[in-house]
Amino acid sequence: MSAIRYELIKKCKQSGARLGRVYTPHGCFDTPAFMPVGTQATVKGMSPDEMKEIEAQIILSNTYHLHMRPGEDIVKEAGGLHGFMNWDRPILTDSGGFQVFSLSDLRDIKEEGVTFKSHIDGSKHFISPEMAIKIQNDLGADIIMAFDECIPYPADYDYAKKSLERTTRWAKRCKDAHRNPEKQALFGIVQGGMYKDLRQQSAYELLELDFPGYAIGGLSVGEPAEIMYEMLEVTVPLLPEDKPRYLMGVGSPDYLIEGATRGIDMFDCVLPTRIGRNGTVLTSKGRIIVRDAIYARDYTPIDPECDCYACRNFTRAYIRHLLKSGEVLGIRLTTWHNLRFLINLMKKVRQAIMEDRLLDFRDEFFSKFGYKKI
Amino acid sequence: MSAIRYELIKKCKQSGARLGRVYTPHGCFDTPAFMPVGTQATVKGMSPDEMKEIEAQIILSNTYHLHMRPGEDIVKEAGGLHGFMNWDRPILTDSGGFQVFSLSDLRDIKEEGVTFKSHIDGSKHFISPEMAIKIQNDLGADIIMAFDECIPYPADYDYAKKSLERTTRWAKRCKDAHRNPEKQALFGIVQGGMYKDLRQQSAYELLELDFPGYAIGGLSVGEPAEIMYEMLEVTVPLLPEDKPRYLMGVGSPDYLIEGATRGIDMFDCVLPTRIGRNGTVLTSKGRIIVRDAIYARDYTPIDPECDCYACRNFTRAYIRHLLKSGEVLGIRLTTWHNLRFLINLMKKVRQAIMEDRLLDFRDEFFSKFGYKKI
Repeated sequence: MSAIRYELIKKCKQSGARLGRVYTPHGCFDTPAFMPVGTQATVKGMSPDEMKEIEAQIILSNTYHLHMRPGEDIVKEAGGLHGFMNWDRPILTDSGGFQVFSLSDLRDIKEEGVTFKSHIDGSKHFISPEMAIKIQNDLGADIIMAFDECIPYPADYDYAKKSLERTTRWAKRCKDAHRNPEKQALFGIVQGGMYKDLRQQSAYELLELDFPGYAIGGLSVGEPAEIMYEMLEVTVPLLPEDKPRYLMGVGSPDYLIEGATRGIDMFDCVLPTRIGRNGTVLTSKGRIIVRDAIYARDYTPIDPECDCYACRNFTRAYIRHLLKSGEVLGIRLTTWHNLRFLINLMKKVRQAIMEDRLLDFRDEFFSKFGYKKI
Repeated sequence: MSAIRYELIKKCKQSGARLGRVYTPHGCFDTPAFMPVGTQATVKGMSPDEMKEIEAQIILSNTYHLHMRPGEDIVKEAGGLHGFMNWDRPILTDSGGFQVFSLSDLRDIKEEGVTFKSHIDGSKHFISPEMAIKIQNDLGADIIMAFDECIPYPADYDYAKKSLERTTRWAKRCKDAHRNPEKQALFGIVQGGMYKDLRQQSAYELLELDFPGYAIGGLSVGEPAEIMYEMLEVTVPLLPEDKPRYLMGVGSPDYLIEGATRGIDMFDCVLPTRIGRNGTVLTSKGRIIVRDAIYARDYTPIDPECDCYACRNFTRAYIRHLLKSGEVLGIRLTTWHNLRFLINLMKKVRQAIMEDRLLDFRDEFFSKFGYKKI
């Protein structure tokens, strides 16, 4: 029996988007869902209590980073990720593949696995699909990911095809290596570059392996938005209705809404935490750089429409002062706000699906936020 | 009428220490009290809500830093420090004198005031007693401090005498410049180096100016503990019983207890926040460097006897991982714990005074903590 179950609650008559719920060993989460990223077993700047206050229902953590530091043996001894970081709600871990390909200087990809250098001390490491699963079994997240190759954009057709076929073989090895599928649900990852037929080939191959959920990887890697949407449009319809679909690494408000309209259930991205640390915040009227001098005497909240702790208690002038002064509370408040903003956005998306008006909501949101509709 | 009132509740029969309460325009605080330091209008790493959760009753902020950034005009526009940082309990600001003498590269002390270079951009500034009060009037703290010279240790007798006499003249000018004594209580600061007769001279001179409270400055600047205690013993008995006494810049557990036994009511220090950021925590059995490798697999709390958020929810192993990984939550948790530790310590000190057993408490605490009794 699978560790998770997806319940399809309703389809939006206007857009086809799905309202649903995923049940895991650590409780359920509503979809479409945005998953904040806690790379090193902590969502940067936030405490677990604060993550609950902003109503995060599931978070993501990174296998590569935890393998490097503190090591999965320590996390396992501490009771797995849930015990180690004191988070009792669902957790998803990625496979480490993306970091191996994006963070490490030197890498050598072979059928057996990948040799790479540590981003911390330059030491040489090897990771195989079996090892990625072993590490994730030790970390103990509710949802774990197959080890895949995330190819850069642009990539030529032959390489994209060769790579996706290896990713399929790796996915099979991951499934075979997985020790406790009744406690952790292993998702396959569709690849195939920006080629429609390769995306379809990848999806068909993975479907044969019958994973409890499917991710779409290798998108939002620099390609134009239209191409990403096209790839979603050829891939999502092939995926089973009764399993969750996860678009990896996507978290800007427009992509979240556009992804949902195309049938995506889960998203993750470092965007809200990363731009927050740099002094940029999301508001209902678009992004602002609250660190800028024009906010030095602005005694209004970041977003008057927001209900987060930062917006209920502090002004742009104060937050700017904190950021300029290098104070921790500054990045805490911008991070807190940005995460709450996206979680509220997903609540509104789910409400709009319930009301069969997600396309209307998209147009209203885009117009107010300042996005151009594609 | 003074902005504050000191109520002497009880004297410890064993030690002579005072249990009391100070009433301010923003509520009262119990003494002996430890005041956490929020240099730049934020206690580093903590939110105002968290400061309330640890039961901080009063905090200190630094005039020099706020004058430099964001400037007292912005703080005033935001409703004063209380409004700017969203803290509705008592605040004390120092005069900026200590920072002018300790932080700035170049300084030129004249009777009129001090010329110094900014620690931020090296720009040249001038501050006089009148300006220090004007800035503090704009910041709007409940308790403000006279502009004084804090001389280094060691200092020769002649300089110490010349300096304290100027500090007295500056104190008079501060009093004359103070615009709203009914809303902000201005404290005088006893100086005099490590010379008993100069400490007494300083106290007598300031007493004539009839301040609503008195601080003892220029101690804990590198001198042996015995000398600091001697200076307290010749100074405190001269100070009025019906006004609070504040020992500036002191915050290690031993100094807090020893200060209380000698009749001190208020203390402040960056120690708990600063050592916390460096990975050192205070426990009932002494300091530990939780960042050290020996705690990598220590799945117990920082201090099993502590009731703080960090100790209730996280292990040394996890906090060490966060600190090693440069994660904000790591320094948040060590800071949180250290502040709560000192606030709990002061609660125990007050309880011991109530029970006429502060010297016994001191011996018990020192023995467990690992201090040698002097």
